[in-house]
Parts: sequence; structure tokens; C-alpha cells
Amino acid sequence: MPSSPLAVGIDLGATTARLGLVTQDGTVVAADRCPTEATRGASGVLRDLAARVEALIQRVGVTRAAIVGLGIGCPAAVDPQAGVVRYSANLHWQDVGVGPALEELLGVPIFVQQDAAAAALGERWLGSAQHADDVVLLSVGTGVGAGILIGGKPYLGLHGLAGNIGHVCVNEEGPLCGCGRRGCLEAVAAGPAIARAGREAALYGAGGMLVEHARRGEEVTAYLVVEAARAGDSLARAVLDACGRYLGQGIALLANVLAPQVIVIGGGLVAAGECLLDPAYAAFRRAALEGVHAIPIIESQLRESAGVVGAASLVWTAARTGALPQGL
Amino acid sequence: MPSSPLAVGIDLGATTARLGLVTQDGTVVAADRCPTEATRGASGVLRDLAARVEALIQRVGVTRAAIVGLGIGCPAAVDPQAGVVRYSANLHWQDVGVGPALEELLGVPIFVQQDAAAAALGERWLGSAQHADDVVLLSVGTGVGAGILIGGKPYLGLHGLAGNIGHVCVNEEGPLCGCGRRGCLEAVAAGPAIARAGREAALYGAGGMLVEHARRGEEVTAYLVVEAARAGDSLARAVLDACGRYLGQGIALLANVLAPQVIVIGGGLVAAGECLLDPAYAAFRRAALEGVHAIPIIESQLRESAGVVGAASLVWTAARTGALPQGL
Repeated sequence: MPSSPLAVGIDLGATTARLGLVTQDGTVVAADRCPTEATRGASGVLRDLAARVEALIQRVGVTRAAIVGLGIGCPAAVDPQAGVVRYSANLHWQDVGVGPALEELLGVPIFVQQDAAAAALGERWLGSAQHADDVVLLSVGTGVGAGILIGGKPYLGLHGLAGNIGHVCVNEEGPLCGCGRRGCLEAVAAGPAIARAGREAALYGAGGMLVEHARRGEEVTAYLVVEAARAGDSLARAVLDACGRYLGQGIALLANVLAPQVIVIGGGLVAAGECLLDPAYAAFRRAALEGVHAIPIIESQLRESAGVVGAASLVWTAARTGALPQGL
Repeated sequence: MPSSPLAVGIDLGATTARLGLVTQDGTVVAADRCPTEATRGASGVLRDLAARVEALIQRVGVTRAAIVGLGIGCPAAVDPQAGVVRYSANLHWQDVGVGPALEELLGVPIFVQQDAAAAALGERWLGSAQHADDVVLLSVGTGVGAGILIGGKPYLGLHGLAGNIGHVCVNEEGPLCGCGRRGCLEAVAAGPAIARAGREAALYGAGGMLVEHARRGEEVTAYLVVEAARAGDSLARAVLDACGRYLGQGIALLANVLAPQVIVIGGGLVAAGECLLDPAYAAFRRAALEGVHAIPIIESQLRESAGVVGAASLVWTAARTGALPQGL
């Protein structure tokens, strides 16, 4: 019995990679996740990914011939034509031939894209950005970045550098950023910034969940801050409130410069919900001109699967437009 | 003797309108300028413009049949399809049918575009952005705005709102902006901001050209500040230095978000030269990631004619692509 065709989608994050087998209508029939272990280096990470893909295919029990191709979103400036990651600060990669390496390991056509642009493609296909051609996805997780679709297609800019909103300065007196500058959006509003602000709050706070957690000697993570805020802890809410206000400035920037048809808020920190997003939306409305308020700001609908689904969509788009080396 | 075909280009500014008759190869065979007199209202301004165009055609002595069409760049959110200015803060216009009105007055096809996008088209055709497809033109004059070309075509965003860099906040404690917010780029780095800073400097300064000028009871304008700075006046140089640093932040924002192949600095204040632009370039390099430094930042080559030439190019592009109602 012939299997129906499947595309592999990979969302390569700096700490976690997500994999999925995705049908032509966007159903994820099987999924997996694994730590990225960037310390193993690019070739180690790519070998790990290939092995995970093989295992996933075996688990589902489809024939290898059913796998049409593989799409991968990378937290990086990418060159999709060459299939190359030019530079990734989070992975510490430079000029890595992701496409050629995975094609050699797996023997299927590979499509490389910027992670946030892939997630935006996913949201446009099946999530919060359907029927929109000009889309910005603001991804807030370990880092902060924007995926930009113009006319429905990824816009990556010179050397793949577009969407670099994480390193726009939003507070000149803010904390140092990994890039060496001060007060970058990523340094005040991403996961590590929330964890750091949570640890400081736990050190100096009078009481509450964060303080008790720290007293027990347990690590204060961004995840814990979000949990505490959702449970009503006032210190944690204050931490997310400050981060949210910075995010709102970032949203206003993107809206003022690009005025897309929709801005989708994605990435792991969307899970924080209203504790983070209400102050962000309020700050956006304060910072943006009234006309710009008309731009809808919507939470990701596909959540953690946006990147996988969007990466797989690269394969299906190529198949539809005849750009697949081996066709269907 | 049949005249060779000509396009009319208009660069409609908030204080001055520039007009030109432009050949198919971009030569401006005749030009004019007039005050915009926005107080006359939209229909008055448009009638003035039509009369100026008629006078220019008569001056050159070509037949009316030689005029292929008219392109006009407006300091506004525009709808090029409908030929409508949706909203212009500087002109105080809302929903003005510029295209239909001028077509009625002049009897030629009219093409309406955002002013900075028109200037970007001019620079791409014959100026500083030749051979580039993704172009940002940062226009610094009475206001601050960005014209965006993606794939060689104007990108205007939802309701024509893209490129709204003038109302991005660059200093939370900065002066009030016309939009009601504080510290917008336009409120600290455009012509009126330079004039205001110059007047303050003249009030409190110990000496120099600005102070002497003010003592004679003469008005301190942005133009005077630029003249004084070029002549070496230290107060005037300090004023432009501060404005330039804010402009550099704006350039960094555009570069980080859009990473175009080139950023062109245009508008009347480019005349300030290195007094304004050196601090801007230095601030850009401090604010942008190293990779982003690769984006060339170039002064406008066409200067004050960029808008006219770019507006005329709308006509020639339509003629080439068969989109002209009456053809050539």
C-alpha cells in the first residue's frame, strides 16, 4: 500500500529542536523534540537531527519514498538559495551548509529558511495570518526576532539580516546584551532577561513565589516567572509587566516601519498570556500613531508547531510550483 | 514637428511643491517650484499645481499631446490604485482624490505615490540606488519619513502607513511632537526641530553666528543653523551633532528591521552635509550590529530633483508596461 506523501518540518531553536512529519494539508502526523546541544558543533547537531528524522519516519512506518522533502527554520541569517546558515549568534554557527549536509545524510531535497519567517509561513498557511500577504511574526523566546513576509514570501534582506528587531535599543541605560550593546530589546524582553529579572526580584523581594522558590535553592527560570505571574504573584507580574512594555515598543516599531496586514506574536513566551501581552498591547497603543492602531496584533494560533508546519510548507510550496528536484 | 514625449513629475511638499517636465531618459527639460499654501485647502492647492503645470508646458512650447502623463509624490499615506491621499498630517488632508482631481483639470493620466517612495524610485532610476532592488530612502526635511522599495517597487503597507519612521520614539524625555507624543524622531531631527534647537542655542549661547543673528532680531531657521555650522559656528555644530545622532538611531532601526541593499539619505537637510551626517553615521555604527554595517548608507545623488524624477518615472513605467490608459 503506497503511503501518502509527507514533508519533514524542523524548527531548529538554540536550545530545542522540534521535528514533525506534515501532510499536504498541514496535519502533523508525528512529532518529536530534542535538545539542540549546540556544544556538539554544527555537524554534530545536523547528524543528531538526521537520526531523529530517520527514527520519526520509522516510528510512523511510512516508506522512505513517501518523504517528499525537508524544510528547516534556523535562528540565523540564512541564504535559502544556497541552503546555508550565514551566521547564528545563538548557535555560534558561521557559514554552515545546512542544506547540503542534511541532503547528504537523508537523501531528500532540503529547504532552509530563517526560523521566524518559517513560523510566519506556518501562521499564514493555517494559523493567525491566513488571507494576509504582508505579515510580521514577532518571535519571543530565547531570543527576539521578526519574520517578515511580503507578498506572501519571506523577505530576508541583505545577507539575510532583516527582522533583526532583537538588537534594536529600547533602553539606553538597560542591561548589557550578548551583542555587546546595552538595552537591546532581546536583553530586556526575552527568556533569559525574564529569568534574570526574576532572580533579581527573588533576591530583593519581600515575599511571594519567586522569593520562596529561591530560598529553597531552586533556580528561578523564565518558565517559573511565567507560572508565578499566572498564579497571581505580584513580583512576577511586575517582571512580566516591564518586559511586556518593551515588547510593545518593539511591536510599535515594526508597525510604524512595515505596517503589515497583521503582526503575529509567537515564540515560547506567548504562553505567558495576558501577564506579558496586556502591557505589551498597551505600550504599543501608546507608542504608535492612531492610524497604525488599525494593524491587528494577534497571538500565534499554531503556537509551538508554527515553525514545524511553516518549515514543512516550504516543501509543499516547492512541490506545487515544480521547484522540487525530484517532483512528487 | 512632433514633440518628443514628456512626463510631468511633481514633488508635493508641505511647504514647497516642485514640478518638472521629464524625458523618457530622465532629463528634466524644465522645472518650477512654488509654495504649497496648504491654507488654501486641497482643491486650491491642486488647482494651483495644475495651473503651474500648464504654464510650464507653455513655457517649454511643446504640444499638449506630448504630455504622456503626470506622477505626483505626496507627503502622505496614499492609495496609488485609487489615486487618493488617505491622510497627510503635514498638509492636513484626509481622503483627497488627488488623481481624479488632477486628471479632470489636466486631462492626462495621473499616478499618485508616497513622496519618499517616489524619491526612492528616482534614486533607483538615476541616482544613488541604481542596481538595487530593496531600497530605503530616509527623507529628512520638514518631516522625517522613509520610502521603501522591495523588489524595485514601492512598499506602502496597510493603508499606506509603512515607512512611518518619523514617529518612532528615540528619546522618551524629548520634546513634544505634533502627533501628541514625546521624543519622536521627527520632533528631534527634522527642520523645525533644528530651527527650535537653534533658537534655544541663540538664547542661551555665549556668542557666535546664531547668537548675533538672534540679537539682530532675525529669525533663526534650520537653514541658518546649517549655514552657521558649515561656517564652523560651534553652537550650530552642536545642534546638528545632536540631531545627527538621532538620525543615526533611525538609520540603525531601518537597517536592523529591513536590511535593504542600500539606504539613501535624502530630503532638504542633506544639504547640511558632514555636520549632520558624520554624527549620524557614527551613531548608526554604534547602534547597529556589525553584520548590518555592511549596508551602504549613501547621500542622495539627485538631491532636490529626486522626487520630481521619481514621480515622472511612474508615468514611464506605466507606459512601458502598457498600464497607461491612453498608451504612448
